[in-house]
Amino acid sequence: MDLRDHIRDVPDFPKPGILFRDITPLLAHPEAFQECIKQLADRYRGENIKAIAAAEARGFIFAAPLALELGCAFVPVRKPGKLPFETQAFHYELEYGTDTLEIHTDAFGEGDRVLLVDDLLATGGTMGACAKLVEHSGAVVVGCAFAIELNFLNGREKLGNYDVFSLVQYDD
Amino acid sequence: MDLRDHIRDVPDFPKPGILFRDITPLLAHPEAFQECIKQLADRYRGENIKAIAAAEARGFIFAAPLALELGCAFVPVRKPGKLPFETQAFHYELEYGTDTLEIHTDAFGEGDRVLLVDDLLATGGTMGACAKLVEHSGAVVVGCAFAIELNFLNGREKLGNYDVFSLVQYDD
Repeated sequence: MDLRDHIRDVPDFPKPGILFRDITPLLAHPEAFQECIKQLADRYRGENIKAIAAAEARGFIFAAPLALELGCAFVPVRKPGKLPFETQAFHYELEYGTDTLEIHTDAFGEGDRVLLVDDLLATGGTMGACAKLVEHSGAVVVGCAFAIELNFLNGREKLGNYDVFSLVQYDD
Repeated sequence: MDLRDHIRDVPDFPKPGILFRDITPLLAHPEAFQECIKQLADRYRGENIKAIAAAEARGFIFAAPLALELGCAFVPVRKPGKLPFETQAFHYELEYGTDTLEIHTDAFGEGDRVLLVDDLLATGGTMGACAKLVEHSGAVVVGCAFAIELNFLNGREKLGNYDVFSLVQYDD
């Protein structure tokens, strides 16, 4: 199965000139979605992962099933004000302006092996912020896994300190 | 296993006087999270569900694994501006102000049997909006399933036209 067959190109979203890779057809195709989770699980089984963390919202769609498949904790990384317990925040820069992500302070233990998951690797800003949150907790980033990687945005370079894995790559 | 043992009470969140039921300990406990998905799957297996839809972001955490378990489509319901393809919107009232949710216009086919899933049934506003989006597409709402139901907020009454199912109920 070529997962690419289930990813739709939507031109000019979210703004003119951008070709958006839309995963909703893949999510609507049970065998394709299951194949994604299987390929991710096969890559990380045996890596002794304690927790899988993902930023809202699309990251949850791949991370939650993968956590269940690997039998490890699922940890949501959220926008400010969404998590009810004590949180720690990480502020990071975007193309225009800044953004903030939070985790619960009890999300990870010292030395926990954590896998980070998201649907898409673009410039790597969100994933880099998640990695900092994990490391500030004293836990260890085992890798960064994505359904889709946009090679031409060089997110893999930005995440140079980490092992990066993706199921589908686009060169343009 | 009592799922309640893995739900944490956080007082005064999101505002003073509100006791928030925090599912992050449950998500961090693989057996408890797996038990949730198993109970939901057992309830709806044999109901010939074509698609499971959920509103961002916490709804995705339960809906995506359930869709994979039941072998049906996962359909994300999102805040405005997040879905790249053609969308239809539904505007609904909150306690203060209004909110909007969107789906892709090709998310459902005529007569598709759709299960709606969310983490929490409070007043039922978000779930009611999701149900309208499904029905406006010509699809059929088979039921509304939740991990947690707050009985005292009477969301079940608001969703009176639909079959409502929840794993854990709180009376106060």
